[in-house]
Amino acid sequence: MIPKNRSKVIRSLRLKKHREETGCFLAEGAKSVLELVKSDFEVQTVVCTEAFLEENRGQLEGKKVELLTASPSELDSLGSLRSNNGALALARMKPNAPPSPLSGLNLALDTVNDPGNLGAILRIADWFGVSGIAASEDTADFYNPKVLQASMGSFCRVAVRYMGLSGFLKDCPLPVYAAAKGGKPVHTFSFRKDCVILIGSESHGISQELRPLIKETIGIPAYGKAESLNVAMAAAVLCDNYRRLNPAA
Amino acid sequence: MIPKNRSKVIRSLRLKKHREETGCFLAEGAKSVLELVKSDFEVQTVVCTEAFLEENRGQLEGKKVELLTASPSELDSLGSLRSNNGALALARMKPNAPPSPLSGLNLALDTVNDPGNLGAILRIADWFGVSGIAASEDTADFYNPKVLQASMGSFCRVAVRYMGLSGFLKDCPLPVYAAAKGGKPVHTFSFRKDCVILIGSESHGISQELRPLIKETIGIPAYGKAESLNVAMAAAVLCDNYRRLNPAA
Repeated sequence: MIPKNRSKVIRSLRLKKHREETGCFLAEGAKSVLELVKSDFEVQTVVCTEAFLEENRGQLEGKKVELLTASPSELDSLGSLRSNNGALALARMKPNAPPSPLSGLNLALDTVNDPGNLGAILRIADWFGVSGIAASEDTADFYNPKVLQASMGSFCRVAVRYMGLSGFLKDCPLPVYAAAKGGKPVHTFSFRKDCVILIGSESHGISQELRPLIKETIGIPAYGKAESLNVAMAAAVLCDNYRRLNPAA
Repeated sequence: MIPKNRSKVIRSLRLKKHREETGCFLAEGAKSVLELVKSDFEVQTVVCTEAFLEENRGQLEGKKVELLTASPSELDSLGSLRSNNGALALARMKPNAPPSPLSGLNLALDTVNDPGNLGAILRIADWFGVSGIAASEDTADFYNPKVLQASMGSFCRVAVRYMGLSGFLKDCPLPVYAAAKGGKPVHTFSFRKDCVILIGSESHGISQELRPLIKETIGIPAYGKAESLNVAMAAAVLCDNYRRLNPAA
């Protein structure tokens, strides 16, 4: 049994307000927890089933982490996932990410407010070796449980810097390419080695105030009748096309 | 107010069992409903808010469709979405899709059991002009509300044929390419104009019994540390690479 005051704190972390008050967040599910304990995040508590503990003892022992066991149903009641497969962890949030190196491939996310999309983009950034991610303040919260879950552990390796994007893009010495329907076809587009790809929200596209800061818009050619691609899909396709030209950047 | 017996039927359609019994399914949300009424699906009933009706009268009038209005909260209670933005529709399911033409780009889905992923793949197929989709019987149900929702209306234009994949791939005259980590790098891969891309489940990859039927495996080069890409992302990247070589197929 998890003490009542602990379970109350854990449950409260579903909300951003409480994450900001406590400076802590919750990672849920076996994959996220295992990635977290081997990352440089400061993990405070792991709550897991006996079965999970048995299977992953080697990865948990010797860490300065409080270990609590719980029944599967207790675990489900603590987290926000419909069904947790073995573990959750409480860890300290990191401060807003530092400025990225401004070399290689960078992403700028303008109002990507769906947590599943942000999580998917973290996973893509981790796969394609993105140098840095800047995000508008109204982009989904990095520590939202759905973001962490959708990132499949990539949140441990990829950071997001939240900031006013117009200031950032104005000062940015790299060319800013925006993903947009009707842009130059990506298949013949010459990505500069060091660049920023700006991605807008699915429903509203790129914000009006950022449009003058775009050097070129890039489109993914369509061959069917869908009105649009999901933003994370578009990000994956653009990153892949960038990497085709810049495998070593 | 929607009559009690009607709301009971509508609610029951969240489950595949009841969809099969009645031959009907539920499309939820303004986008899905508007795509549905202009498609060749047989729509029986549209339940919507007064505001939705006002805004879309032109698209609803003159159709042989029963129109019922409901309050937003009533609508929420009928459907499976956490929050519906205006409408839901009850329509007849189509029979299993006929065999696809076996030209151009085809997809074969092996145990893609996450509904969000299947829906995303429908949207991708619709964007990239995929000719046909075959799916193993244990792939998510096409008419699952989460599949329809994630497809963003593409379910109206893209069909899935559920079948035993091993029989299909054995008889298939087209080369079968499988998406797999460590496969030939997609950036230098020569897709045949007429082909099948086989996509497995994220957790188990391609089924053992299908592996001998694969002509070549294709990989998406990784430049970071993520263990894998989401199956829908992988599908998007592969379709885009296919289209770069075969824009007119």
